[in-house]
Amino acid sequence: MTEAAEEPLSAQELREAWPVLSREDRVQGLRLLPRDSAEDLFFELPSSEQAAVVLALPPSERRSWLRLLPPDDAADLIQAAPHGERDSLLQLLDDATRKEVSALLAYEEDRAGGLMHPRFARLRPDMTVDEAITYLRAQPRSSLATLYYAYVLDQEQRLLGVVAVHELLASPRGARVREVMKTDVVTVGEDLDQEAVSRVFRKSGLIAIPVVDAQRRMKGVVTVDDVVEVVSEEATEDIQKLGGTEALGEPYLSIAFSRMLRKRAGWLSALFLGEMLTATAMGFFEHEIAKAVVLALFVPLIISSGGNSGSQATSLVIRAMALGEVRLRDWYRVIRRELASGLALGSILGAIGFLRIEIWQRFLHSYGEHHLLVASTVASALIGVVTFGTIAGSLLPFLLRRLGFDPASASAPFVATLVDVTGLIIYFTAASVILRGTLL
Amino acid sequence: MTEAAEEPLSAQELREAWPVLSREDRVQGLRLLPRDSAEDLFFELPSSEQAAVVLALPPSERRSWLRLLPPDDAADLIQAAPHGERDSLLQLLDDATRKEVSALLAYEEDRAGGLMHPRFARLRPDMTVDEAITYLRAQPRSSLATLYYAYVLDQEQRLLGVVAVHELLASPRGARVREVMKTDVVTVGEDLDQEAVSRVFRKSGLIAIPVVDAQRRMKGVVTVDDVVEVVSEEATEDIQKLGGTEALGEPYLSIAFSRMLRKRAGWLSALFLGEMLTATAMGFFEHEIAKAVVLALFVPLIISSGGNSGSQATSLVIRAMALGEVRLRDWYRVIRRELASGLALGSILGAIGFLRIEIWQRFLHSYGEHHLLVASTVASALIGVVTFGTIAGSLLPFLLRRLGFDPASASAPFVATLVDVTGLIIYFTAASVILRGTLL
Repeated sequence: MTEAAEEPLSAQELREAWPVLSREDRVQGLRLLPRDSAEDLFFELPSSEQAAVVLALPPSERRSWLRLLPPDDAADLIQAAPHGERDSLLQLLDDATRKEVSALLAYEEDRAGGLMHPRFARLRPDMTVDEAITYLRAQPRSSLATLYYAYVLDQEQRLLGVVAVHELLASPRGARVREVMKTDVVTVGEDLDQEAVSRVFRKSGLIAIPVVDAQRRMKGVVTVDDVVEVVSEEATEDIQKLGGTEALGEPYLSIAFSRMLRKRAGWLSALFLGEMLTATAMGFFEHEIAKAVVLALFVPLIISSGGNSGSQATSLVIRAMALGEVRLRDWYRVIRRELASGLALGSILGAIGFLRIEIWQRFLHSYGEHHLLVASTVASALIGVVTFGTIAGSLLPFLLRRLGFDPASASAPFVATLVDVTGLIIYFTAASVILRGTLL
Repeated sequence: MTEAAEEPLSAQELREAWPVLSREDRVQGLRLLPRDSAEDLFFELPSSEQAAVVLALPPSERRSWLRLLPPDDAADLIQAAPHGERDSLLQLLDDATRKEVSALLAYEEDRAGGLMHPRFARLRPDMTVDEAITYLRAQPRSSLATLYYAYVLDQEQRLLGVVAVHELLASPRGARVREVMKTDVVTVGEDLDQEAVSRVFRKSGLIAIPVVDAQRRMKGVVTVDDVVEVVSEEATEDIQKLGGTEALGEPYLSIAFSRMLRKRAGWLSALFLGEMLTATAMGFFEHEIAKAVVLALFVPLIISSGGNSGSQATSLVIRAMALGEVRLRDWYRVIRRELASGLALGSILGAIGFLRIEIWQRFLHSYGEHHLLVASTVASALIGVVTFGTIAGSLLPFLLRRLGFDPASASAPFVATLVDVTGLIIYFTAASVILRGTLL
């Protein structure tokens, strides 16, 4: 980008253009900004882009950027870098931070341990409020990043209680910390999955939650601003999977076209292979179709109704699972609800379908002398297909979770494919029973 | 529930059983708990259920529960109560809180003004750090609920700067507040939509953001814990709409069956009515089907491929819009990407479809002497249908937003229905061109 050298982009312009710039242009743009604006923009970037920026800089400049980050963000950046680069990045940190970052890297990224900040304010239970305030005042600024609460630990680093820093201010100066602390502390285990962590935040309304190990030793703090990101990312993944694609993992407009295509083509091809069974099923009924072409007319209507009802059921159940409203053991309550829903919805659509055929017949004589039988076939097939779609859509997420997969993989297209094949069999079976001796 | 009187439920048991209990059993259960456990459980409830609990109590007991809540939560509860009850609930509050709650009720619930807490810590710029700390210590506890930051205001209540309370502690006691405050404050306007508010939080990583009016007078503070809820609720709505149902607005297992059915039946019936056009379209091609029944066999395969690719595109675009990655003015970039994706994905599926027919033909002789023409028809229809599905799925959210609707209403089933009808026309048109003179 030679123009950049002539007229550097402002921070705002760079921010706007960022998604469409090449890596070189990004780094170039950042280096031309005043240092403080450049740092602000750097902080806003997702870890993967921070890593790309740092690695695109000459080694002599990397250290100053990496050292800007608190340990948890530095750990995320290093995790986002290619394997071969991680050690050299780790070496750029000062000793204390490197130790903290290495400890964080040992946790999986999507666990409480991988989300937490290792620096937090510690108090002893026997300090007075005044001593505690003086002590907190003396802490270096960088360790205050998450100082909304101070945690009271015993000699073995076990968590005894918590006190909000602003509540310390409102407490009598001579009181002991143990008298003003809250002992009924909400904690999360270091290996708790991040979705579960976000549920604890939603339920408790806290802005920071301590992470403890099995011995209740405190390891760090997860703060709610990281959880907003988690909640949003998890929802993005679920929505993309529900739509029948692999989760992109990058913004739609900035992901490379070829990578996006791969993530979409995989599922689409798999679904297509599954959907081929409909051609086989239709082939099985070719004879019936040849005898009564009128049956073919309603094939799209019937299978899509099954797909639509399945899509409703699967997205309701998948979201309820993600929110923790529905757990594995609730499967029986869910299936009872969905069986009733399916029958009711199927009856509504069946009734509309019946009327549609009879009204068209009345005015256009579209469906021949056996129109009543045709209408009955379509109506009863709709009840069966919609009920099956609803049950399949609601049970599939349970089945996937039980088998250890992500329930959100029970996407609307996946359920629709499953229901299409079965729907054809239901439809033609109903036809062969109802129309035997007349049309068939 | 007569057993309850004999052996009261523990708080944990009541929490677990809550979704399946009637309103009377819930209130009964709460009244039998120790007051502090009952209050903890009450705080965890969504506003609508808090309102139901309070209204189910005798009027003499309502006041003590309502007064537990901070003004923003009280406003939410009153908003969730039936219109006829709101005034009587408002009268239960003390004068100061009633004034604050009334002001909050004037804002729409899904705007920054409707999310904010009206109580926050105010400082004057000329106070010393020591005076500021003393002043904050003297505030009543209830106004400290959101005291992570103190806001520096001038005489006209205009926002001059912000200082984190824990940073006050780390500042020299004699310094002036104006010297230690940060003046580059991230704010949101009182009418900003809550989705936009959540994006500001995600970008800034702050835990509280001041709400200001057009004159930069500070009206309150939005805290990140409320935003976690917003992000989660918005995602729930989007996922449910994408699945082709109205947003439930209540947990899946606790919403009344009849209400859930109404929310599902509406969309399902509308989609069914739209899908009826497929029967009309098929009727239009009845003659061709009668002549070449083999064409009917691939109808489900072809229309479902269009539906699946449309579902992918619409869910990717809807999510990118909700995250603010894609704006209205990006429509041209999106359609260019999706056109390329559609052609590529369609070619992949077309190739697989072509092979499938030729392989079956080789071993089973399923498709007669014109198998190559049939395979070409299916392959070219797939390219057309998948491309159309992808374009329709990506453009529909833009169209809906442009017309002022929620883009998430471009659900997978909605797009599939749209694509089914068009897909049939594309397929039979391709057939009539390619097969003319042979099968047709």
